[in-house]
Amino acid sequence: MIAAIKTKGTYLLIMSLRKLYIILFAAFAVQGLSAQESKELSASMGKVKFSFALDETGSPVYAVYFNQKPVIRPSHMGFMLLDDSSFYKDFIMTGSARKSVDGTWQPVWGETKNIRDHYEEVAVHLQQKKSPGRLLDIIFRVFEDGVGFRYEFPKQPNLKYFIVSDELTEFNLTGNHKTFWIPGDYDSNEYPYTTSGLSEINNTQIVNASTAIAVRVVPDPYSVQTPLMMKTADNLYINIHEAALVDYPAMQLHVDGKSFQLSARLVPDAVGNKAYLHAPFHTPWRTIIVSDRAAGILTSKMILNLNEPSKIENTSWIHPMKFVGVWWEMQTGKSTWNYSDYADSVSSNGSPIPNGRHGANTANVKRYIDFAAANGIQGVLVEGWNTGWEDWFGNWKENVFDFVTPYPDFDIKEITRYAAAKGVKMIMHNETSGSATNYERQMDTAFRFMNLFGYTAVKTGYVGKIIPRGEHHDGQWMINHYVRVAKKAAYYRVTLDAHEPVRPTGLQRTYPNWMACEASRGNEYNAFSDGNAPEHETILPFTRLMGGPMDYTPGIFKIKNYSNVPGRQVHTTLTKQLALYVTLYSPLQMAADFPENYAAHSDAFQFIKDVPVDWDDTKIIEAEPGDYITMARKEKGSDNWFVGAITDENKRIAHATLDFLDKGKKYVAIIYSDAPDADWKANPEAYTITKFIVDSDSKLLISLAAGGGAAISIKPASAKDAKSIKKYKN
Amino acid sequence: MIAAIKTKGTYLLIMSLRKLYIILFAAFAVQGLSAQESKELSASMGKVKFSFALDETGSPVYAVYFNQKPVIRPSHMGFMLLDDSSFYKDFIMTGSARKSVDGTWQPVWGETKNIRDHYEEVAVHLQQKKSPGRLLDIIFRVFEDGVGFRYEFPKQPNLKYFIVSDELTEFNLTGNHKTFWIPGDYDSNEYPYTTSGLSEINNTQIVNASTAIAVRVVPDPYSVQTPLMMKTADNLYINIHEAALVDYPAMQLHVDGKSFQLSARLVPDAVGNKAYLHAPFHTPWRTIIVSDRAAGILTSKMILNLNEPSKIENTSWIHPMKFVGVWWEMQTGKSTWNYSDYADSVSSNGSPIPNGRHGANTANVKRYIDFAAANGIQGVLVEGWNTGWEDWFGNWKENVFDFVTPYPDFDIKEITRYAAAKGVKMIMHNETSGSATNYERQMDTAFRFMNLFGYTAVKTGYVGKIIPRGEHHDGQWMINHYVRVAKKAAYYRVTLDAHEPVRPTGLQRTYPNWMACEASRGNEYNAFSDGNAPEHETILPFTRLMGGPMDYTPGIFKIKNYSNVPGRQVHTTLTKQLALYVTLYSPLQMAADFPENYAAHSDAFQFIKDVPVDWDDTKIIEAEPGDYITMARKEKGSDNWFVGAITDENKRIAHATLDFLDKGKKYVAIIYSDAPDADWKANPEAYTITKFIVDSDSKLLISLAAGGGAAISIKPASAKDAKSIKKYKN
Repeated sequence: MIAAIKTKGTYLLIMSLRKLYIILFAAFAVQGLSAQESKELSASMGKVKFSFALDETGSPVYAVYFNQKPVIRPSHMGFMLLDDSSFYKDFIMTGSARKSVDGTWQPVWGETKNIRDHYEEVAVHLQQKKSPGRLLDIIFRVFEDGVGFRYEFPKQPNLKYFIVSDELTEFNLTGNHKTFWIPGDYDSNEYPYTTSGLSEINNTQIVNASTAIAVRVVPDPYSVQTPLMMKTADNLYINIHEAALVDYPAMQLHVDGKSFQLSARLVPDAVGNKAYLHAPFHTPWRTIIVSDRAAGILTSKMILNLNEPSKIENTSWIHPMKFVGVWWEMQTGKSTWNYSDYADSVSSNGSPIPNGRHGANTANVKRYIDFAAANGIQGVLVEGWNTGWEDWFGNWKENVFDFVTPYPDFDIKEITRYAAAKGVKMIMHNETSGSATNYERQMDTAFRFMNLFGYTAVKTGYVGKIIPRGEHHDGQWMINHYVRVAKKAAYYRVTLDAHEPVRPTGLQRTYPNWMACEASRGNEYNAFSDGNAPEHETILPFTRLMGGPMDYTPGIFKIKNYSNVPGRQVHTTLTKQLALYVTLYSPLQMAADFPENYAAHSDAFQFIKDVPVDWDDTKIIEAEPGDYITMARKEKGSDNWFVGAITDENKRIAHATLDFLDKGKKYVAIIYSDAPDADWKANPEAYTITKFIVDSDSKLLISLAAGGGAAISIKPASAKDAKSIKKYKN
Repeated sequence: MIAAIKTKGTYLLIMSLRKLYIILFAAFAVQGLSAQESKELSASMGKVKFSFALDETGSPVYAVYFNQKPVIRPSHMGFMLLDDSSFYKDFIMTGSARKSVDGTWQPVWGETKNIRDHYEEVAVHLQQKKSPGRLLDIIFRVFEDGVGFRYEFPKQPNLKYFIVSDELTEFNLTGNHKTFWIPGDYDSNEYPYTTSGLSEINNTQIVNASTAIAVRVVPDPYSVQTPLMMKTADNLYINIHEAALVDYPAMQLHVDGKSFQLSARLVPDAVGNKAYLHAPFHTPWRTIIVSDRAAGILTSKMILNLNEPSKIENTSWIHPMKFVGVWWEMQTGKSTWNYSDYADSVSSNGSPIPNGRHGANTANVKRYIDFAAANGIQGVLVEGWNTGWEDWFGNWKENVFDFVTPYPDFDIKEITRYAAAKGVKMIMHNETSGSATNYERQMDTAFRFMNLFGYTAVKTGYVGKIIPRGEHHDGQWMINHYVRVAKKAAYYRVTLDAHEPVRPTGLQRTYPNWMACEASRGNEYNAFSDGNAPEHETILPFTRLMGGPMDYTPGIFKIKNYSNVPGRQVHTTLTKQLALYVTLYSPLQMAADFPENYAAHSDAFQFIKDVPVDWDDTKIIEAEPGDYITMARKEKGSDNWFVGAITDENKRIAHATLDFLDKGKKYVAIIYSDAPDADWKANPEAYTITKFIVDSDSKLLISLAAGGGAAISIKPASAKDAKSIKKYKN
């Protein structure tokens, strides 16, 4: 780089740094200077290209291009270390290495049967000129759908244990992109999305308004969470996130609304440091997914590809499943998690006084078990089964739950026996209240308890301020905690569904028993807050779900008029709830409503019974973040397809082109769609169910109500079907 | 109180608050107003008395008297809570209750067979006048040798979970007492003592100079640790500490050198709070021991009496013992804890490269086992046996040790077999490096490992900055940790010797398997720092040991000239090391030197072989903190007595009056004393051993060298002894 400047004349040196970059990078891009001449390195795959160079201060700079046009303008990289505030400059390049990889792998479960991992890698070896000449490597991988890079601290004599004060990675964007964002909260991802230009981002108002969120810590009003979804004025879709977040804090982004510069902000620990590292170490990958089609974002497997293969050798015990549970009852005030109304209300003989509204009682749990068994639902989750719910929240209390002591009305032996007899799997619930130290002390006991009573899955929860006090949900200590829990669960052959953890970064590839996370604003917010705007579910796949499956808990059929939460309602139609089983991917999907509410719509419930949770293929038919999504998925090991179509607050016609079906083959499509007069607010439970013969030439036009959606099951037609059922015609 | 003021005339109200207290309390003391008239409450036992009242702001105030003279002038009490900064005033007294207790109990092990627990208790019930009328109780107990009080937060509707911002307890002293103090460090008690007037206390210099201490955090230059030992100008001895420190941070004291006011400073947590409490709750006892004789401080059992009886029902498995160990080798540089010199130095086949100086190798351990077996020493401690010592310290590293993986040259199966065959108990070593979270995750595994290999005792260590990061060794979280470890150890029937924990507060009564702590500046400092001044051991029994036994590791025979620590030396004579087995009480006593150094002085080593670690009785013959101590102890279940006499940097004649011996009975006394030309610095290893017949009329005069000491074993004489051995004559 320095040599390059010299050949071009010293006048460049007096220009501003930003201009310098632009000129240099433009020069590289246009003139294609060889790496040797300029020390510029680059690689491309399809339309995507990245460049790397050192600037005149020896600071690493990268850029990303799509179709020759800049997506990320030249952007700095590097660190502040506690013992070296300049670990971002004064570097020389001591070498580099290239690698081409093209392979295919099969996930244990997922959206597609095969995943192609195809990239060009460039590893850059840097050394600081100043003593003691510390080393830093940066690894770039360019894929057809984006670029990932990570920092590696090689084993070296003068950098062993060290503390990161700040990561200085920048993402310099090219304009005031339309952005789908939530605040950069250290402890929560449970915000509604705001859509705005980058220049308008200020999270103060939304943070202050979000009183339903248990813990809110947002020191920077200009910070946002990733995955951050953007769309440029010329219709390029850009998604920035990270992959393989292990032993490192989550990266949030500070937005400079004037320069359109995003810069990494790592979540701090209790004393303000960011990460305690030990070389050799590599950071998570920083990911920039880019596409000229919204669908290209949704089908990207880059984040999964940047994660390590499964560390669990035998995965035969890991099974996706649907489940029901004693849970929506509590969200809607029908019953309670707690057995007594007060922690200290005990009768004269010292036993707790029941409030008479405890949900997790044996009879009620059996009702759910019966329902699951009758409908082929594999699992039953029960929350509030263990003692401690009377004073579990808000006290920053450490020893809050013990994870092994049932309430007196929860007969775990009998429930275990009953569920086993009915062929239903019980799902354990371990709420920690954020007291991770308490959970870690008892984790072995908790998992042994699950093994003892045959629970093969656990839902964890972190509702509350973290203990160790001063740590945050998204800081390095908790990042390590979540992985410890996943590993411990794997040791005990238990699958994991973590609620209120950090947002996922593709680690489900490495720990496939870690099947789902919440880490976002789930369906539950419709019960206890102003709810989720109708567009919410059209944004989630482009943001939160880029990192991994979400336990959104779809399937609410009784949309409103819950007597204990007056004024609250789900902000979708009933059939949109069905569509979510397709559009919001998770290998664990809850059918979240009450058995009686499903019984009231047993025809619509058929779709939930039919829809699988593991897929061989996925096709994005049409999509636009914040507006609509129509997608089709092929059931694992089957010829059945399932289509979900959703819209935002606007009525819309979904165009379900079925060209993915086998040519010349006939299928029966059952279409669950909004009734003509349906509307998420006024008339959400009105739907129609129609049945047609379809084939690969079919183009279904389906009317979606405002806040509505449609679900379609498509199965090969029998000869009898072909005769008896009408062919679909527009 | 308010009524009392009125009867005396309103002019009092315009006087300064301090003057008001003095006048009022003087009035109560002198005039003896009845509790009913004045709302003043008081109780006395022997020469000790306390008074309590509310001042005109409704703030609780207490005072302590000895022989009618104030020891603690009227001093405020109360709290700042996070949600109520005035939980120290505006109280009314709603009632009080009195209780007299006189009983005797037997410790599982200790300095005396029986302990008398004799006190008058007054419980004061307070309520805040302002809404919501929160309750606070204060419980006083007056003993013959002092006063203890604690706060109790009763169960109440409007104080459930709460956070203490500050405890406001004051100890207003009557003058510029001579004080034996160490800095109020949140993480260490390993300082040398300074003797000064209260007005001269400033810890800045000593903190800055104490570079050998692993972690130093002392935000307040005027803060000191407890137990704080003081002596008044009129020869009253006062000791302030706390008893039964459970689920609460340690109390340090801020010294106002002008007013002689001490005020409680609780060690904060990671976010600056002091304690997270849940009513009903009681604080530790604040203890004020007072005597007109220094010996009266040393014999006080008040702190033990203020602790709860044993929570371990079956204590038959708890045995005091002496032990040797692979440890002083490392302190003196003969061998290393670590197996390799660098964590990352591995051979071509990936195995670590030994440095050839690893102490915990099988052959060397067997040497200690042989020595223990040959000399009737019950235990062998081995440090550095487990992997991780190459980079264990100074990196704030969380996963530092695993507690179950031996180094390749430590054959634990063979060592277990060998020790068992020789009748020797192995003592486990679990260094945590301050990473308590790591230890808690692995504690069950670690204790199961001990059970598996027959280890019945563990020495823990906390050398390093605490993890959870931001917490301190003496904060509430770690206080709870130490108790968790003691309970876990008891569950696995393992006895505990905690190094670098909070200083003890008598919890060895409640958890008698928690046999010793370091929590002070041990003998080891003589090996790696400027060492411990000759007066150090004359101060320890009046300070650190008031809370409980200390694992000081006495018994160093090779006082100086260790080739790897040139210039370092133990600051005592050899026989003073013997005396410490008597003067520094612990049920776990190490014979810390090398076998070969004991072999070189096998005549003197006989005392270590003979001296027990459990006692039926203790007599303080003469004592003055900072100057000298001569004490005698009677062996448990035996007629044998052992005397220890130590002096500071001054030569001195110890006066060992033996009037505690059975009248008319003859004993053989073996006197291990400094040779006439002995001197801690110039000639520390010169000693004489003499043998005499003694009886209860004997008054031994023993010359102690500068920094010297003497040890005497006294056993009933046989008829043959009586004839063959000369009677002692002055």
